[in-house]
Amino acid sequence: MPMDTLHHVVVIGGGFGGLQLVKDLKGLPVRITLVDRRNHHLFQPLLYQVATTLLATSEIAWPIRRLFRDRTEVTTLLAEVEGVDTAARTVALSGGDTIPYDTLVLATGATHAYFGNDQWAPFAPGLKTLEDATTIRRRMLLAFEQAEREADPAVRDALLTFTIIGAGPTGVELAGIIAELAHATLPPEFRNIDTRKTRVVLVEAGARVLSGFAEPLSDYAYKALEKLGVEVHLGKPVTKCSAAGVMIGEAFIPSRTIVWAAGVQASPAAKWLGVPADRAGRVIVEKDLSAPGFPQVFVIGDTASVLNDDGKPIPGIAPAAKQQGAYVAKVLRARLRQTPAPGSFRYRHQGSLATIGRRSAIIDFGRIQLTGALAWWIWGIAHIYFLIGTRSRFAVAWSWLWIYLSGQHTARLITQKESVEPPFSGQPDP
Amino acid sequence: MPMDTLHHVVVIGGGFGGLQLVKDLKGLPVRITLVDRRNHHLFQPLLYQVATTLLATSEIAWPIRRLFRDRTEVTTLLAEVEGVDTAARTVALSGGDTIPYDTLVLATGATHAYFGNDQWAPFAPGLKTLEDATTIRRRMLLAFEQAEREADPAVRDALLTFTIIGAGPTGVELAGIIAELAHATLPPEFRNIDTRKTRVVLVEAGARVLSGFAEPLSDYAYKALEKLGVEVHLGKPVTKCSAAGVMIGEAFIPSRTIVWAAGVQASPAAKWLGVPADRAGRVIVEKDLSAPGFPQVFVIGDTASVLNDDGKPIPGIAPAAKQQGAYVAKVLRARLRQTPAPGSFRYRHQGSLATIGRRSAIIDFGRIQLTGALAWWIWGIAHIYFLIGTRSRFAVAWSWLWIYLSGQHTARLITQKESVEPPFSGQPDP
Repeated sequence: MPMDTLHHVVVIGGGFGGLQLVKDLKGLPVRITLVDRRNHHLFQPLLYQVATTLLATSEIAWPIRRLFRDRTEVTTLLAEVEGVDTAARTVALSGGDTIPYDTLVLATGATHAYFGNDQWAPFAPGLKTLEDATTIRRRMLLAFEQAEREADPAVRDALLTFTIIGAGPTGVELAGIIAELAHATLPPEFRNIDTRKTRVVLVEAGARVLSGFAEPLSDYAYKALEKLGVEVHLGKPVTKCSAAGVMIGEAFIPSRTIVWAAGVQASPAAKWLGVPADRAGRVIVEKDLSAPGFPQVFVIGDTASVLNDDGKPIPGIAPAAKQQGAYVAKVLRARLRQTPAPGSFRYRHQGSLATIGRRSAIIDFGRIQLTGALAWWIWGIAHIYFLIGTRSRFAVAWSWLWIYLSGQHTARLITQKESVEPPFSGQPDP
Repeated sequence: MPMDTLHHVVVIGGGFGGLQLVKDLKGLPVRITLVDRRNHHLFQPLLYQVATTLLATSEIAWPIRRLFRDRTEVTTLLAEVEGVDTAARTVALSGGDTIPYDTLVLATGATHAYFGNDQWAPFAPGLKTLEDATTIRRRMLLAFEQAEREADPAVRDALLTFTIIGAGPTGVELAGIIAELAHATLPPEFRNIDTRKTRVVLVEAGARVLSGFAEPLSDYAYKALEKLGVEVHLGKPVTKCSAAGVMIGEAFIPSRTIVWAAGVQASPAAKWLGVPADRAGRVIVEKDLSAPGFPQVFVIGDTASVLNDDGKPIPGIAPAAKQQGAYVAKVLRARLRQTPAPGSFRYRHQGSLATIGRRSAIIDFGRIQLTGALAWWIWGIAHIYFLIGTRSRFAVAWSWLWIYLSGQHTARLITQKESVEPPFSGQPDP
């Protein structure tokens, strides 16, 4: 059968869900076009380690087209999607191209959100892309460098205060590593400042850290953070971010470096389709993950709002996206082979993991809960296992082993100057 | 003796010369301030491997302050130098600080130069910093991505034409690796284009490639480049660079990606001191590498113009800078200990090396000349030996071994979007 007459599956997004789907479509009589606006798949669960100098960018990102080089039915395109025409069944790409589809899968992910305070973005970057990670790395390292040259003690203290907003896994992981960097790795390298006096402030509007975990594990993480010297502020919403610092309720914390790890906003897939979305912008999908009214369009991963059997929303984590990608592949397989469709999508939670610093972690398997060094080793092995390719597994294992044995971080580079650096006065804004 | 009364050596620049000097001053009764505008020392001889996706940025760059963390008399500052006041004996830093010195060493290196055609810079980036390398990497990978989506054959051909200007070691190394990437690594990954048809054009105004080497070695390199499929144009100066391509004499080569590997220009040390410079802006130093009229100011590395005993200029390579750093340390040691000064600086040439692609190289030890695979292995081992630190040696050795065995490159990432992307019409400018 010539390629052009084959059923054409267009997949937008090469994240965990999109990749799993394309993998699982192997062997079906389809041609596949995989579109992403980046040339690489990113292993987001370890992105915070790039931001905190533990890993290099290329250790957690892989060119998407390389992953499918042996699948000649898969065409990979680097392009931005501008819209979907559901009547004509085409996707509009930046530059004016349109691609027709028989089946469309939107796996376009989410970005960070400032809850209506987008003006905070320049002062409190989020962590979703490799550039976000190198920006945070650069700002953090520059703050220490500037503090070393700063004569005014108040400004120096603000430079040596790092505030992380949001105590989910990313916020906790960032805070733990920054505290270890400042308190253990950097002290012998500076002459004018004592980096052990660095304040790492973790601010959470909710009542506890890592609220997705069982309460005893949250408590363990809270104590582990305190042991690392992290100041944790719970139940305190941020009311302002500026170049000078963060306002928490009525209190102002002068802080040069702020990281936003608080909210997410889905990509505009709901707008493209003109279908209802939840508060975070996620498409409220049918039980087979298709968009309401469009059985040939599926939405998966962080772009989809899916409720579990217990009525709780499915978490926005890699295993959930992968399961959805695998499920849609099953649905398509049944349709193409004209066999009965699989039952509704059901999410199987395999467990939650989070690390606090370089020696401890928490794992929540539901019945089994683990903390401490053992959990940390399981966490590390699991993450190496889920990386793509032998080379990355060796490289990350080697980086971690080196850091573990030597205490020296791999990638302490200040690169990629920003065109517009936020001004800094050291004083609260008027 | 309290720190403040010690002789204060200020070193500007943490390149090969500056680092060697600071290392060799160990044990002397001095305090040292090492200033660099970057936080990292860069192993420039392998920078082209970052530009061509073979190595990751963190494999060839190290935080300067980490290198001297055990030397408590060394203070490292991240700062830009704005001028030198030779009367007051102070260095002016960006931000308004000044540092007094007893001895000043300027090791500020060189940047690429466009011979009075600075308007070519946006179209033909040079290769001196990590950002330059990721910019070239990004443009090169983007050209393949855009070609995969391009319908117009003329535009596609321009996207698949890579022009390197200057056939010194950097130009030859870039051309060889790009040719191998296009002709061997990428073909199975693209569906709409045949990357084996990629043109890699190497343009040289002079009569031969690698003119710093003996003529038989140049001839070998020329043939090796041809075997890799590189088009070499000799004796042809570039008369124009634009977003559409390169004008060589009267002929126009439509080319989306252009790299400038042709000229160097010293940093403005001569202007800071108000002393004579050669055509490339290098300070014409005394026989002890001090600046004329300022015995307490030394200029070393690519910023200094030094003639060898045979009247030829010393090449701008890492071993020359290191020898100059070591020599100035000896001069300072003699001055501080009031022993006789060492004789004039003499450069000992240890040999020249260059690679062509991933399997062949040329080595010129003067009497002994080597080519081919053996030269390539010697080149590789020498470069790993000269890297800083066990970790980097292992990491680079591992990356190279992986590439050698698998043919897969490490760091094929498109990152760091440019704020202003040069426009591209595919047609020569009017």
